[in-house]
Amino acid sequence: MSRDCSIANALGVVGDRWSLLVVRELLYGVHRFAQIAERTGAPTDVLTARLRKLTGTGVIETRPYSDRPPRVEYHLTASGLDLAPALLLLLSWGDRWVSDAPPVHLTHEEAGEAHPLRPVVVCAGCGQPVDEGRISVRDPAGQDLGRLAG
Amino acid sequence: MSRDCSIANALGVVGDRWSLLVVRELLYGVHRFAQIAERTGAPTDVLTARLRKLTGTGVIETRPYSDRPPRVEYHLTASGLDLAPALLLLLSWGDRWVSDAPPVHLTHEEAGEAHPLRPVVVCAGCGQPVDEGRISVRDPAGQDLGRLAG
Repeated sequence: MSRDCSIANALGVVGDRWSLLVVRELLYGVHRFAQIAERTGAPTDVLTARLRKLTGTGVIETRPYSDRPPRVEYHLTASGLDLAPALLLLLSWGDRWVSDAPPVHLTHEEAGEAHPLRPVVVCAGCGQPVDEGRISVRDPAGQDLGRLAG
Repeated sequence: MSRDCSIANALGVVGDRWSLLVVRELLYGVHRFAQIAERTGAPTDVLTARLRKLTGTGVIETRPYSDRPPRVEYHLTASGLDLAPALLLLLSWGDRWVSDAPPVHLTHEEAGEAHPLRPVVVCAGCGQPVDEGRISVRDPAGQDLGRLAG
């Protein structure tokens, strides 16, 4: 039986290259169809289908910017903005394991200080870094499904 | 021109539903073809292709477990294990925005204390939570590409 899991459910909504690249462009402040197509490299028919799906699943929303001709921009909803941390981690993973050299440098500003961004995952429950070997999994009925492999 | 970006590079390696579900199963300790096929629901021809690609890109590795007949198991490499934080964030996003109710509950153990895992991204440079509105982007030559939209 296939595993019931929110990773699979999440990937059912944004589990393809183009959808996540659309979310990236909206984070970069690129909101119009032609520019999104150019920056992602997505074929326009594929992009049209992905934008429709992302709108239907509530990840993005349209906002009119012209009446004649009727034109809309695409913006992230609260759900779409909430994908930013996962995208930052994928970027960081790509920098470490795929790209020859980081194609962009991200700077984090906090309390007036700017420094290179180094995104890491911690558990908000205890403030400690998350090590998959310390995570155990239960189903909603409480049955132990084991521990993630470290 | 399409944007040169480690998110795109990362998605070139693991940017499809099945590849990330394979990584999930390996984290769950499921290492053999038939079980991975069952738990992900991937068609076997697709799964064969994805395992080959993930092996070729260094995300997973094979380990023999039988000589006659020759059989291998699949395991995460250091690169594959390094995807765990991004998958935990996707799970968390799926719990919040897609699943009707969390299909699994993750427990984090730290210093002998068990509590519900609440993965969040912080910047290791300053220890503060990452808010995309405080992140600016430069290309390797130092040109300002703007700020992520908050």
